[in-house]
Amino acid sequence: MSPLKTLRTCLTIMVTIAAAVSAAQLPPPVELPKPKLDNGTTLIQALKARRTGRDFSSAPLPLQTLSDLLWAAFGVNRADGRRTAPSAKNWQEIDIYVALPQGVYVFDGKAHALVGLIAGDLRAATGMQAFVKDLPATLVFVADLARMKNASPEERDLYSATDAAFISQNVYLYCAATGLATGVRGYVDRPALAKTFGLRADQRIILAQSVGYPKK
Amino acid sequence: MSPLKTLRTCLTIMVTIAAAVSAAQLPPPVELPKPKLDNGTTLIQALKARRTGRDFSSAPLPLQTLSDLLWAAFGVNRADGRRTAPSAKNWQEIDIYVALPQGVYVFDGKAHALVGLIAGDLRAATGMQAFVKDLPATLVFVADLARMKNASPEERDLYSATDAAFISQNVYLYCAATGLATGVRGYVDRPALAKTFGLRADQRIILAQSVGYPKK
Repeated sequence: MSPLKTLRTCLTIMVTIAAAVSAAQLPPPVELPKPKLDNGTTLIQALKARRTGRDFSSAPLPLQTLSDLLWAAFGVNRADGRRTAPSAKNWQEIDIYVALPQGVYVFDGKAHALVGLIAGDLRAATGMQAFVKDLPATLVFVADLARMKNASPEERDLYSATDAAFISQNVYLYCAATGLATGVRGYVDRPALAKTFGLRADQRIILAQSVGYPKK
Repeated sequence: MSPLKTLRTCLTIMVTIAAAVSAAQLPPPVELPKPKLDNGTTLIQALKARRTGRDFSSAPLPLQTLSDLLWAAFGVNRADGRRTAPSAKNWQEIDIYVALPQGVYVFDGKAHALVGLIAGDLRAATGMQAFVKDLPATLVFVADLARMKNASPEERDLYSATDAAFISQNVYLYCAATGLATGVRGYVDRPALAKTFGLRADQRIILAQSVGYPKK
């Protein structure tokens, strides 16, 4: 084999191995079923039941529940691609990262799909309280500041925060309507979590939110 | 009359006039009826209908509607005084200022009452778009930073914004459920409006929100 051929072969093998390693780091695919959206609880009943829960069972969330929850949170609710929560100038700059026992996923609202990001149980990294590591799901609202075109630093600060909270309130009400427990958490080591998630410098962690069944 | 007696009389008259002038500046009392909370729209239907409206009729809001809307926004939903929207550390630091044609009021969630603040039509001051002056109601979310005990400046910025938006999303969903139009507005001359409302230096205007019937 010529030296050039050997080099080429080595390179091909290295690329293949790199791809395999990268694939191994992806979590198992999660296929979200179509949202069912048949819950009959009224908005008023949900508002009456709205509360911040702190005691969660570690029982996993059914996929249908996760699907419906994510649609309620920030799903597409119109033909033009607009969503269940507003965003300043329709930037839609908030991404929902979902930490599940088997890995971290990002919600793609347009495709209504969970995109695998990192394999492994990283739930403990999403908050500083001890109970966080056992939650069936934590949502982390991450603002992509690059999508906030022409925003001043003050506008970025304000609207990345408000736009995450609009979504979070949808989660509160969906959980209240369906008997799930939920609570927003600001007690997050944001620099460490940004590193764990592999965020860019212009992505910002706003809030985390626990979701699960209430502890009995 | 002795000079002292004359002075005393003059002072009494001045105090009386001052009180009268001050009273004249208060808007007419608005008695909120008890919230009815009988709307049967489901949360899912409200989420499906959630949108930002920009075309409003100037038809006034019935008092019952205003009452129900304010309860949904940030009413007390539990015996311990907690509300339909969360706030960081239960600071409950957001006040809802309500600009109506006859004056500006502040919502007292605990008493479920509108407290008169300033008489007169100040609706135009609540936003920079031309349509704002004809809206039947604008809600202005004002954070009282003094209530955010031990918060760092960064925490004040973040949570005053998120806590206003939780409330605002309740307004969005209530309007979606009841056929009202609503839209958040960030295009507000905040320093000028703070002066108009007579805010303290440690009160901060976060967002305004239009509420009315959709234009036909």
